[in-house]
Amino acid sequence: MAPGSPVYIPRPASITLTGLGKLRASGVAAGIKASGKRDVGLLVADEAIPCAAVFTRNAFAAAPVRVCRDHLARSGGMVRAIVVNAGNANACTGATGEEHAARTCAQVAGLVGCPVEQVLVASTGVIGVPLPIEKLLAGANEAFRTLATDVAASQRFLDAIQTTDGFPKAAGDIGPDYAVAGVAKGAGMIEPNMATMLAFLGTSGTVSSAELASWLPSAMAKSFNAIHVDSHASTNDSVFVFSTGAAAKAAEGLRASIELVCQQLAWLIARDGEGATKVTTIDVRNAPSEQIAARIARTVAHSALVRTALFGNDPNWGRFVSALGNVEDVGDTSRLECRLQDILVFAHGGPTPFDRSDASTKMAQDDVSLVLDLHNGDGFARVLTSDLGYRYVEINAEYTT
Amino acid sequence: MAPGSPVYIPRPASITLTGLGKLRASGVAAGIKASGKRDVGLLVADEAIPCAAVFTRNAFAAAPVRVCRDHLARSGGMVRAIVVNAGNANACTGATGEEHAARTCAQVAGLVGCPVEQVLVASTGVIGVPLPIEKLLAGANEAFRTLATDVAASQRFLDAIQTTDGFPKAAGDIGPDYAVAGVAKGAGMIEPNMATMLAFLGTSGTVSSAELASWLPSAMAKSFNAIHVDSHASTNDSVFVFSTGAAAKAAEGLRASIELVCQQLAWLIARDGEGATKVTTIDVRNAPSEQIAARIARTVAHSALVRTALFGNDPNWGRFVSALGNVEDVGDTSRLECRLQDILVFAHGGPTPFDRSDASTKMAQDDVSLVLDLHNGDGFARVLTSDLGYRYVEINAEYTT
Repeated sequence: MAPGSPVYIPRPASITLTGLGKLRASGVAAGIKASGKRDVGLLVADEAIPCAAVFTRNAFAAAPVRVCRDHLARSGGMVRAIVVNAGNANACTGATGEEHAARTCAQVAGLVGCPVEQVLVASTGVIGVPLPIEKLLAGANEAFRTLATDVAASQRFLDAIQTTDGFPKAAGDIGPDYAVAGVAKGAGMIEPNMATMLAFLGTSGTVSSAELASWLPSAMAKSFNAIHVDSHASTNDSVFVFSTGAAAKAAEGLRASIELVCQQLAWLIARDGEGATKVTTIDVRNAPSEQIAARIARTVAHSALVRTALFGNDPNWGRFVSALGNVEDVGDTSRLECRLQDILVFAHGGPTPFDRSDASTKMAQDDVSLVLDLHNGDGFARVLTSDLGYRYVEINAEYTT
Repeated sequence: MAPGSPVYIPRPASITLTGLGKLRASGVAAGIKASGKRDVGLLVADEAIPCAAVFTRNAFAAAPVRVCRDHLARSGGMVRAIVVNAGNANACTGATGEEHAARTCAQVAGLVGCPVEQVLVASTGVIGVPLPIEKLLAGANEAFRTLATDVAASQRFLDAIQTTDGFPKAAGDIGPDYAVAGVAKGAGMIEPNMATMLAFLGTSGTVSSAELASWLPSAMAKSFNAIHVDSHASTNDSVFVFSTGAAAKAAEGLRASIELVCQQLAWLIARDGEGATKVTTIDVRNAPSEQIAARIARTVAHSALVRTALFGNDPNWGRFVSALGNVEDVGDTSRLECRLQDILVFAHGGPTPFDRSDASTKMAQDDVSLVLDLHNGDGFARVLTSDLGYRYVEINAEYTT
């Protein structure tokens, strides 16, 4: 995202996954979630379509992640179906877990009538507990039987991928000759280890899986990798992007639209951070390099002191400045200016006079902007962070025993 | 600290700063703290003594830090006095701040009768507000008049360096022919930007400032730099170590004693982390290298998910393991074992059966041990972390406006 572009709040999605064409969706309750809510989702394309994905770099990558990596390599990025379950992450479950993930794919492949490597799988939920595989397989059958192409079917799929999400996350963008739609879950963690972020994006545009794969790193860097909720890549994090090709021709602007939808979903995930009351967009401007800008943005976003100040609507410039001062090789900071909701609060090495009460009121919003301008180069970075309040502690400390 | 050495809780200090000999101390109320409590402390040696110090690496290092660096360079590490104020950090105060710090040293030098560069200065408190310099200078006069050598004088000095500390922090170690004593403040942050950690250690042993300086990096790495409260080096962090030489001869074991007292003070600081209910000692064992061990220990200690689980007495191995899995280049994790209070909770890639309720009860202590053993090398690292609870949020979010 370019320096100076507005802080982003997504509008309601105008397009759903099934609206992309050539795609059916479903979501059913298979009894994996204790709540009895929908917990198995399925997407099936009319033919094998290009798909690219990025997965968690956590050393304890879950079984479905390992199976997907294998399948994508073997299928050359051509995919017929993606099956998802919520309620159990199938992570830290050893060889049995991998067998479960493979069996799930095999069963869906049988139903669809495609090679097993054209089926991908994702799981989210509690870790270290074996999958209730029979429930999942029965759920996949039921999901296949109920595939549909209407808006409600997309919604059922979205329902089925939720764990402790406070609200469903859907976004979209419509271009001149294509559409992009996406849904996500994350990063709620009311139950332990449910930090998983899953996102499923599709476009009606025509694009190869290799090209999609080449677009993903930059899109990720500007979206899902630029949000701070827990600074924690979970065992199951996965982002899938596919092209139904329903729009028939290669589309101008498609790459930017995919990035935008990733950013929209990322904003929604940050907004739904545990106990979050707002999303703060931290823009670091005019740093000595993009790398240093990124380091600053990340350090400030990561600081518990900064995040509690944001929760408390406290225009506490000292914490922002001090966090920035912690960054290694930050360079000359003597021209640093710090703006909170467009109010200049720090410049020339010290605080500036401002109305604290007014600033505090302006911070009590969904969408807060913090700009750190070093006037020492042209490096830019943007990170979104959720604030840290009582509810975060409550959610994370009061599980279990 | 060697692998396997016990988790450390300091015993009450058996020796005070003035007990080291050749040293007088005082602490007075100069009206800098709004509370009217003691806020100016002074240490004066009978003659110039060797002293070494390490200071914050924060880019916004406060004026007293900059003045100390200059004075230590000019004095060749020979010091007569250290003057400290609490209630105002003299940070982000520009040229005026530096002039104030220099004037404070000059005044003490005049009283003591020594070159100005033999006087060091430290400040802690609110940042971005000019020092009430007249109050400080009057306080320094009063502190000089009330210097004494008894235990109560040491206590008054300790009182004067506190800001929002929950309890005073003193530690000591007595060797065959030397003693080491130290006091610290930190890292309470009830008022904003009071994260400062100050420590003053002395020994009666005879050791040059160059040697003290050469010992400090390792002592720091194993103590003050191995605690996680806020992952935030403040503008004013300073550790001073001096040798009164009262014990006359160079002492065997002195270096280890200084390290130990640093560790004792670090434990106390972690225990007094904002809203902390315990200190967790995270030992990473048998990692591929010491660097990787340190990275793991830091990542786990830093995780808000881990720290809230510790607060909640939740034996949530998934969070520890997943945090570890986030570390770059962590290597083979297939043999990871995870022990919480000596209870094996994770091994062979998955959870082990254990009594969660028993484990939870055992976590409800001042002093918790978390061991992550990778069985993949011989790298060791230890980090202390405070837990993260409601009170942390309350303290940090509910300041101001």
